[in-house]
Amino acid sequence: MSAAPIGILAGGGPLPAQVAEAIEATGGSVFIVGFQDFVDVARIAHWPHRVVRLAAAGELLTALRTAGCRDIVLIGPVKRPALRDLRPDAEGARIMARIGRALFSGDDGLLGALVRVLGEEGFRIRGAHEFLTRSTGQVGALGQIAPDDQARQDIARGIRVIRALGALDVGQGCVVQDNLVLAVEALEGTDAMLSRCTTLKQPGPGGVLVKTLKPGQERRADMPTIGPSTLDNAAATGLRGVAFEAGATLLTDPEACVARANALGLFLYGIGPDMMRAGLQGE
Amino acid sequence: MSAAPIGILAGGGPLPAQVAEAIEATGGSVFIVGFQDFVDVARIAHWPHRVVRLAAAGELLTALRTAGCRDIVLIGPVKRPALRDLRPDAEGARIMARIGRALFSGDDGLLGALVRVLGEEGFRIRGAHEFLTRSTGQVGALGQIAPDDQARQDIARGIRVIRALGALDVGQGCVVQDNLVLAVEALEGTDAMLSRCTTLKQPGPGGVLVKTLKPGQERRADMPTIGPSTLDNAAATGLRGVAFEAGATLLTDPEACVARANALGLFLYGIGPDMMRAGLQGE
Repeated sequence: MSAAPIGILAGGGPLPAQVAEAIEATGGSVFIVGFQDFVDVARIAHWPHRVVRLAAAGELLTALRTAGCRDIVLIGPVKRPALRDLRPDAEGARIMARIGRALFSGDDGLLGALVRVLGEEGFRIRGAHEFLTRSTGQVGALGQIAPDDQARQDIARGIRVIRALGALDVGQGCVVQDNLVLAVEALEGTDAMLSRCTTLKQPGPGGVLVKTLKPGQERRADMPTIGPSTLDNAAATGLRGVAFEAGATLLTDPEACVARANALGLFLYGIGPDMMRAGLQGE
Repeated sequence: MSAAPIGILAGGGPLPAQVAEAIEATGGSVFIVGFQDFVDVARIAHWPHRVVRLAAAGELLTALRTAGCRDIVLIGPVKRPALRDLRPDAEGARIMARIGRALFSGDDGLLGALVRVLGEEGFRIRGAHEFLTRSTGQVGALGQIAPDDQARQDIARGIRVIRALGALDVGQGCVVQDNLVLAVEALEGTDAMLSRCTTLKQPGPGGVLVKTLKPGQERRADMPTIGPSTLDNAAATGLRGVAFEAGATLLTDPEACVARANALGLFLYGIGPDMMRAGLQGE
C-alpha cells in the first residue's frame, strides 16, 4: 500500500504542476484540488484532480478526505476574493465565520487564517518551498551579470522599504533607482507596479526590482514569485535587474529565468541573510 | 520706505498667487521668481516677477537680491528634475556640487538641501503655511459628511502606513478600504495612485485617501496639497472621503474643496494630533 497522496490546493500558473512533478520525482503521489476561475485545468489534467469553487469548502474538504490526503500544499495565485461573489457552501460559511475579521484584513491575515483553519481540520500544511527546493533561488547572481555598487545600495534601500511596509501587511515589492524609490507595490501586483515605472524612471542607470518576504509572512500560503515574464517586464521598464530573497521566493522555471535574464542583460540576484540584515541596519 | 518684499519661488498651480495675495492682505509686498516650465505665468503676472530656469541659480539669486528680498517662500509643485536636463548656470553648478549626494536621494533630501543652501546664501526661508493660515485645514470634518467608524479605522491604518514609509523618505499618501491597503504613493503622485484604485477597489463601502506629512518632512519646501480635483478623482475612484493632516496640508481654495466634497458626498477630514498619535499607537 502506497503512502497517502499529498493534496495540492491549486491556484493559477505553472507552479501547481511543478509541485506535483517534484513530489512524484521523490516517489510520492498527489491529489489536486484546483480553484475554479484560477487553476489552469490543462496543466493539472495529468494528475487525479477536482475543480471546486473557492468558497465550496465543504466540497474541498470532502474531496481531500476521500482521496486520503493528510498533508496539503497551497500553491499558485488566487486573487483575494470579492466577498459578495464567494457564494460559500454550508461548510464554507462555517469556515468564513471562524476566520471572521481576518477576511477583511490584509492578505496575510486571510491566508494565515486559512492555514490555521485547515490545520484545525486535521491537515498538515506544507510549504511549496519544501518540494520546489530547486526553485527557491540561491544567494548571489544567478546569471552572467552581477549588481554593481549602486545597484546593491538600491537593493538595500528596497529591503528597508519592504520591511517597513511589510510589518503592516502591505506589499512584497518596490522599485528603487539611484537611491530614489520609484514605486511601492500594494494590491496592484508586481507587473502593474513595473508598468508604471516606465513613466517614473529617471535618467541614468536603471533601477532595481526588489522582492522579499514580509516579516511574519505565511510562506506556506503565499510566497513571492518570479517568472521569465517578470524579467521581460523589468527589462521593458528599463530596470537593470531583479533582486529576490534567496530561499524565500519561488522562481517559476529557474533555468528559463536565468536564460531570460542573460538574454536581456539583467542581473537576477538572490539576497542572502547577510545582505538582508545589512539592508535593515542601514539608514 | 516700505519693508523688503518677500521673495516667492513659484512652481505650478494656484498657490503662489494665493501666497502673494495673503502677503499683500497683511500689508506686505512680494517679488516672484517663477520656475520656467512649471509656473503658470498668467497667474503671477499681476505682481513684479521674473521667470528663470530651475537650474539657473545665479540668475535666481541675483534677481532676489536685486529686488531686495530677505525672506523667501517656496511654493507650488516642481517635478524632481531630470539631471541631464538641468543645464545649470555657473552658480547652479556650484550649488549642485554643494548639495551633492542629496541630489540623488529622496525628495526630502533634495528639498531639505535646497532650503539649507538658500539659508547659507543669507535668505530666511519661510513656510507657505505661515501665510496661508486659512488654507492649512482644521481638525475634524470640514463639510457635511463625517467619516464613520470603519472609515476612521481606515484613516488610522493609513497614518501608520505613511509613517512607516515616510521614515524612509517615500510617499505622502495611501488608499485604505475596509482595513485593506489598496495602494501606496511613491513617485507617481496622488492622482496616479487614485487612478489605479479604480481597478483595485473591493466590493462594499469605498476606501479613504489618507495624506499626511512624512516624519521630518521639510514643510518649508514641500507640503502635501489637496485641491478640488483631488476630491473629483477620489469620487471617480469610488472613495468615501479624503483625510489630511490638519495644519500640515495646503488646501488650494478651501471653500471650493468643501463645496466639492459636499456635492460629491465625500467627507473631507482634518486629522488632529490626537488621531495622529492614536493611529501610530495601533497595531
